[in-house]
Amino acid sequence: MAELKLAFIGFGNVAREFARILLSRRDNLAETYRLNCRTVGIATGHHGIVLSASRSASGIDLNAALSIVESGGTLTQLENVTEVKHCLEFINHCDADIIFETTPLSPLDGEPAATYIRHALQRGVHVVTANKGPIACAYQELKTLAQAHNVAFRFEGTVMDGLPVFNLYEYCLNGAQITGIVGVVNSTTNAILSGMESGLTFEQGLLEAQRLGIAEANADYDIDGWDAAVKMVALANVLLDARLHPREISPQGIRSLQQADVEKARQRQATIRLIGRATRSANGIQIRVAPEEVAAHSLFGTLQGTSNALTLLTDLMGEISLLEENPGITQTAYALLSDLLRIWQE
Amino acid sequence: MAELKLAFIGFGNVAREFARILLSRRDNLAETYRLNCRTVGIATGHHGIVLSASRSASGIDLNAALSIVESGGTLTQLENVTEVKHCLEFINHCDADIIFETTPLSPLDGEPAATYIRHALQRGVHVVTANKGPIACAYQELKTLAQAHNVAFRFEGTVMDGLPVFNLYEYCLNGAQITGIVGVVNSTTNAILSGMESGLTFEQGLLEAQRLGIAEANADYDIDGWDAAVKMVALANVLLDARLHPREISPQGIRSLQQADVEKARQRQATIRLIGRATRSANGIQIRVAPEEVAAHSLFGTLQGTSNALTLLTDLMGEISLLEENPGITQTAYALLSDLLRIWQE
Repeated sequence: MAELKLAFIGFGNVAREFARILLSRRDNLAETYRLNCRTVGIATGHHGIVLSASRSASGIDLNAALSIVESGGTLTQLENVTEVKHCLEFINHCDADIIFETTPLSPLDGEPAATYIRHALQRGVHVVTANKGPIACAYQELKTLAQAHNVAFRFEGTVMDGLPVFNLYEYCLNGAQITGIVGVVNSTTNAILSGMESGLTFEQGLLEAQRLGIAEANADYDIDGWDAAVKMVALANVLLDARLHPREISPQGIRSLQQADVEKARQRQATIRLIGRATRSANGIQIRVAPEEVAAHSLFGTLQGTSNALTLLTDLMGEISLLEENPGITQTAYALLSDLLRIWQE
Repeated sequence: MAELKLAFIGFGNVAREFARILLSRRDNLAETYRLNCRTVGIATGHHGIVLSASRSASGIDLNAALSIVESGGTLTQLENVTEVKHCLEFINHCDADIIFETTPLSPLDGEPAATYIRHALQRGVHVVTANKGPIACAYQELKTLAQAHNVAFRFEGTVMDGLPVFNLYEYCLNGAQITGIVGVVNSTTNAILSGMESGLTFEQGLLEAQRLGIAEANADYDIDGWDAAVKMVALANVLLDARLHPREISPQGIRSLQQADVEKARQRQATIRLIGRATRSANGIQIRVAPEEVAAHSLFGTLQGTSNALTLLTDLMGEISLLEENPGITQTAYALLSDLLRIWQE
């Protein structure tokens, strides 16, 4: 039985669901992978930053940490921990094999996540992130840094809630080249457009999506196409070896769509979806995010609610599409487990 | 630059398309993978069985072999080859690192492919097959045999024309368990059902599928659900660790469907598809192949012509679907390249 020492930067919904999976799968990981995981540090924005005390052989009690954070306490209440004041200090002093970075997204600079990841990689620590900001804003730099320090940098949970699109590219498309990407990658706009098809106005569709917890109180970032743009940049940077930055994209959102547009599309057996496209041309990689009419009887046309889908255009393998039906936080958290096991096996 | 020595058992449409890919990608394989491929033997049913003469450093000229077979000649016309009379003799004497097995399918016993594969694995040769018979009829035995002889046994092209379903399972679903499989995996029935939706009778739909080259002259094997059954058994044996055999399945085909059935489904906003299901229960793995009504606005409902789709039900990753739009022989041939490169990298 071997041991991996884990540390968390960010302990929000995704990281906590991942912690619950680690707890519930402890026996399975021991049996199937001969693996024991020990938590050596947790850094949060509002519940303190703590390291496991060096005398603690069992590490931080994840169950206790979950209870404390979910009841609004601070992690210094844990036994056998020492408090540190800053995240960079946390990275410098934690004795982790892998750091799980899940801080809030900053889509136009990827910070402070990118700084944390850079710092951890330079210290020779493997990094797993669920944060698409650093992949959209600094992927090539971070990838090169990880290679230089001979550590892994994995990010399956950053786009499409854990649908294994990056692993598919890395492990399943040997010898084929991806020539383009087309996808419906934003849930909020998809839920609003589904609502408008059933007769709601844009505003009613938005309110309904907010009521269901799909859209945030301020949904501008989704509605104006920025979430889809950042995801398409992240996908293009990895799958098409692009060097793009979200600032270079001018997405067109769905704010100006009228019921009449949706109705006109319906009369043509079509439906409107916010489509992201990344295409390769002689001038490099171009990204377009805009509402498009798609056939009602097509993969994208049938997507309802929060379901997402992505089509990869390839030279030898034709068009492969991946579809995820109404994903939730468990899928994103699973991606962190999948990345952990991939690092463990390599 | 390293070299892999390849041999072919079966040199039909798929193997020849693979040979064309190897020829057209020769420079790319050298640059990207530092790999040179040499053909040391080709065994066919009707065009002879030849081994590269031991003095031939460049191996068999694949271009010349393609020309000879496609013009109806025999491979003994090639330069620097020696003829052998039987396939087992071919396997015994060929100096291959990898044998590519693509002989015609025998769905209820997997022979003679299974015997060839068994023989090659026992001789310590890696095997790649595009033949689903051995996976449906003898997977566990062949897998164990490959492990015992420390060689690879790969088969991505056997089901769904190269869509990377087996690699997805092996490399992208770490730590998750597949609990069930649902799919539309047969092209002929799908094309006939699409035709019936546009007003054709079953017989007219079949004739149209035959005219388009989708259905064979004798399409009973497809129409009666056997092709789908064998594919579902192959999928279940690998993805669900089942020990099933096609003889244990009683598929229900689409032969008795009437235009009226299709029309009734349409009135319910539904459509009929031949659906394969593999499910895990306390009694083991069950497979069902039968026509089902599915929502017209669903992944399976929108599949037209030869498009195929598969949904994997998992414990942690939810439902993942894979869709391939109108695949052709290049996709199956690509799967052989993908398997070759996977063996090369491991």
